[in-house]
Amino acid sequence: MFYAFLKKGCFQDSVSLMLISRDLSKADDVKRVSVMMGTPANKDVFRETGMWHELLEQAGPNDVCVVIESDQPQEIAAQVEERLEQALAQLAKGRRSASYPVVHSLSQALRIDPESNLALISVAGSYAHEPAMQALEKNMHVMLFSDNVPIAKEVELKRFAQSRNLIVMGPDCGTSVIAGAPLAFANRMPSGGIGIVGASGTGIQEVCSQIALAGRGITHAIGLGGRDLSAEVGGISAQAALGMLAGDEATRVIVFVSKPPAESVAKRIAELMETLGKPVVALFLGTKPQSRQQGNVWFAESLDEAARLAVELDDAEAVAEALPDAAGCRILGLYTGGTLAAEAAGLSAQLLGLKMPAHHDKGVMLDDQGHQIIDLGDDVYTRGRPHPMIDPSVRNDVLLDIAGKRPVEILLVDVVLGYGSHRDPAGAFAVAYEALKQSSNGACRPICIAAVTGTEEDVQVRSAQIEKLQTAGVVVVRNTRQAILVAARLVRPRRQSSANGAALSLLKQKLHVVNIGLREFAQNLQDCQVPCVQYEWAPVCQGNDRLKKLLSRMK
Amino acid sequence: MFYAFLKKGCFQDSVSLMLISRDLSKADDVKRVSVMMGTPANKDVFRETGMWHELLEQAGPNDVCVVIESDQPQEIAAQVEERLEQALAQLAKGRRSASYPVVHSLSQALRIDPESNLALISVAGSYAHEPAMQALEKNMHVMLFSDNVPIAKEVELKRFAQSRNLIVMGPDCGTSVIAGAPLAFANRMPSGGIGIVGASGTGIQEVCSQIALAGRGITHAIGLGGRDLSAEVGGISAQAALGMLAGDEATRVIVFVSKPPAESVAKRIAELMETLGKPVVALFLGTKPQSRQQGNVWFAESLDEAARLAVELDDAEAVAEALPDAAGCRILGLYTGGTLAAEAAGLSAQLLGLKMPAHHDKGVMLDDQGHQIIDLGDDVYTRGRPHPMIDPSVRNDVLLDIAGKRPVEILLVDVVLGYGSHRDPAGAFAVAYEALKQSSNGACRPICIAAVTGTEEDVQVRSAQIEKLQTAGVVVVRNTRQAILVAARLVRPRRQSSANGAALSLLKQKLHVVNIGLREFAQNLQDCQVPCVQYEWAPVCQGNDRLKKLLSRMK
Repeated sequence: MFYAFLKKGCFQDSVSLMLISRDLSKADDVKRVSVMMGTPANKDVFRETGMWHELLEQAGPNDVCVVIESDQPQEIAAQVEERLEQALAQLAKGRRSASYPVVHSLSQALRIDPESNLALISVAGSYAHEPAMQALEKNMHVMLFSDNVPIAKEVELKRFAQSRNLIVMGPDCGTSVIAGAPLAFANRMPSGGIGIVGASGTGIQEVCSQIALAGRGITHAIGLGGRDLSAEVGGISAQAALGMLAGDEATRVIVFVSKPPAESVAKRIAELMETLGKPVVALFLGTKPQSRQQGNVWFAESLDEAARLAVELDDAEAVAEALPDAAGCRILGLYTGGTLAAEAAGLSAQLLGLKMPAHHDKGVMLDDQGHQIIDLGDDVYTRGRPHPMIDPSVRNDVLLDIAGKRPVEILLVDVVLGYGSHRDPAGAFAVAYEALKQSSNGACRPICIAAVTGTEEDVQVRSAQIEKLQTAGVVVVRNTRQAILVAARLVRPRRQSSANGAALSLLKQKLHVVNIGLREFAQNLQDCQVPCVQYEWAPVCQGNDRLKKLLSRMK
Repeated sequence: MFYAFLKKGCFQDSVSLMLISRDLSKADDVKRVSVMMGTPANKDVFRETGMWHELLEQAGPNDVCVVIESDQPQEIAAQVEERLEQALAQLAKGRRSASYPVVHSLSQALRIDPESNLALISVAGSYAHEPAMQALEKNMHVMLFSDNVPIAKEVELKRFAQSRNLIVMGPDCGTSVIAGAPLAFANRMPSGGIGIVGASGTGIQEVCSQIALAGRGITHAIGLGGRDLSAEVGGISAQAALGMLAGDEATRVIVFVSKPPAESVAKRIAELMETLGKPVVALFLGTKPQSRQQGNVWFAESLDEAARLAVELDDAEAVAEALPDAAGCRILGLYTGGTLAAEAAGLSAQLLGLKMPAHHDKGVMLDDQGHQIIDLGDDVYTRGRPHPMIDPSVRNDVLLDIAGKRPVEILLVDVVLGYGSHRDPAGAFAVAYEALKQSSNGACRPICIAAVTGTEEDVQVRSAQIEKLQTAGVVVVRNTRQAILVAARLVRPRRQSSANGAALSLLKQKLHVVNIGLREFAQNLQDCQVPCVQYEWAPVCQGNDRLKKLLSRMK
């Protein structure tokens, strides 16, 4: 049996009421309780969940509706009503004690904080369009947490935003992080060089989580909502977000996470990614990428791989940025390990579009456009001499010989430790590198990048060898792959982004938020020292559209 | 001008002499010095390097040959000779003070250490076949560091070894590690669950290095030499090595590193890998694998990826091994994050060969062969209720509801932290999991595997949430992918290896080495407390083959 009652003219946000109904349902003899505002959408829910009661006919969107299922509803009604009153009183109390200003219109909010530049909206989807458009008209960016916004409204909002160089994140956008400010469902992240664009809330959160686990951080994470890459919406916000991160100097690498875009949108997004002038890691969920990399775009297959690639590329960018400009310089790789030389040559050829030689005469693994990678373990260098891993003078001689003929600009070397190897390969190489730097009369070049193969337990001790190299001014990276990523980034002319960072203002200004809807979001921003005004939104004119139209005419 | 002299009947290993000639060349007025044994191969080197001197005609393989290039060779000859004597005296001294026994025949070595089970051979390639065959005849495994061994000899040795259930590593095998014992060029590695087979010395060393960097370790690393996978040799040692690691209980995951095998060999190796009953990471250097995974074989594209995959799979195996047997059990994934659910479903389908549904009614992302993965963020669960990330009771209710209908065997969950999420999702789930375990009357099942999305800075604190889960008996892994790797490994019937670990004796017995050639290798083994006898090998009968044959007949 069902019992129902209404509490007129007392708008509450849905989540608060849902949590209240969860508590009420714990009352004795109560089978089910449902507490919702009397919006048309919610009335449908009452019907669909078999909790409909005729009294609801009289309910408007500003009325709290309570329906109880119980064997003796009459007996417990009073008890439930009392509990409800207590819960609502609690909410009101919380509101009064809120440390952020609470207002009842957007203009009030802007009077309190004229710098407000983002509206975070979490009111019921059927109403979200109105405050969103208001905010855009005030030149505020918008994040729409609300779901069930009609797609036509989404297109209208995003086209209007586009015309104003603003971005609409969402609707149904669960997660964004702007300069450390958590918008809706977001993790507290260390700041770093990785920017994220995502049409998937938990996708963004998991990539963030894995980046933090790897000890790195993010600049911003921009949510799009699940429909932005549909044919109807056409990826308007995706393009805006990519342009923003391309224009954001702190962002070294961009991660893009979404379901595969609609046919008509995919091409546009792919082309845009190639013009961003930064490495992009693209994860199209549920698809197997044909290739792993094309130009500056790297394709991941899983969330953890996307995060790992981003970290790897961000590290390479960071190392490269700290080095002098070397655009157009030539790479010389002198390797004592044959397989390391082969891997270095293969990856260099892939990243720089070089031709691999069919034969490796004299250990030359790569020799194209002035870039050379040589395997010094080749017979021609070891005939009558010990292997260069045993006798580092082999490499030193070759290096100084080449340096006598042409300037060495970017030098790549391996340092292989372990039994059998020389007792101090780093030290031996450091001497030759010093000599090389002298001969190149103190110019900051040649840049030298080394990767060490070996463990802390090795007789030469990995960390000690790394220190010796660094002391000599050698840049030491984690492995051969990382060395090539850095070198390739150095020699390529830094492509300027041709992306249009129209909505960049969101990242350039300090964030000031007007929170419209769930109060918890305002509290979270407050906790992160982000200026925030709470706009206690309620449907105008009981949500009566005719009355609303009349009213707007009279304005 | 050239000056030469010989030192008769005084065999020295090549590396020692190379290092000596490097020192001698530092003498005043010396342009070049070359010091080598008078073997036919070395005489060629003298000619090719333009250091030939007629006196060398009289030199035999047991004679040290010295050729000096200088403007006044006569004047400095004495000085050079004196330096040579000093260097040779040094070597002899080192030998006498060696802590390992030194003998002059294999039978002497076996008399001193009858348990000797491996011969490490680094004499000149043209002579290596003889001591190698001797060792095999004594039922010893062989590692041939020597290069320039004729391929016909390699085939002969490996076929013979095969007939005796022995393995020949090499020739030209730079690196092996057997139970921590470094053979030739090897790194000191932490012990762990990863076994390596490699036709590339530095390839093995770099994979080892990256595994150690990741904080993991190896069981054994078995080198093959560069030609084992050629059509002529047919991968005899590769098959032996894979069989050995398949039969080695401590080896949970196998990494295989080599250039692509010859056409005729590739198929055999691929088929063998599929029968090993363990995860195999295959890296065929310089090739782009068509797929990333087929059955138990995972294909890597670079050395660091091979190491990373191995670590990931080893971790999953280790977690699974520590859990009760669950072969044939069903997976139930209850996810609050939509993208996490999708990723879990996709990877499960891939690994277990399940069908993905075209539509996701009621958030069912996967439902095949009894395995189910559900996205609890689907509207059907959130209508009139908060999102399960806000209100964990959503998942708890679904879980207990399902548990009421059928046994829950392997349960997968996500725990998403951050702003917006519940303040204690782990604690809330732990309660439901406890209830579930009670209802399944104390059977060790249901096994629960969780991955946490969130950071240490989140209000819920990642580490604290993980601890709560672990306290409740939940297995917590690094990410969704890892959870699926563990679950898939659990439900699959543990396939027994059908590989033939014929040469397994090398891994089962304690290693006792007879080192034939470079003394440094003996010293390294000594340093690692590996019993080792040094066999001071020298060419029989001055390397005169006719005389040698006569002699062998007379024996």
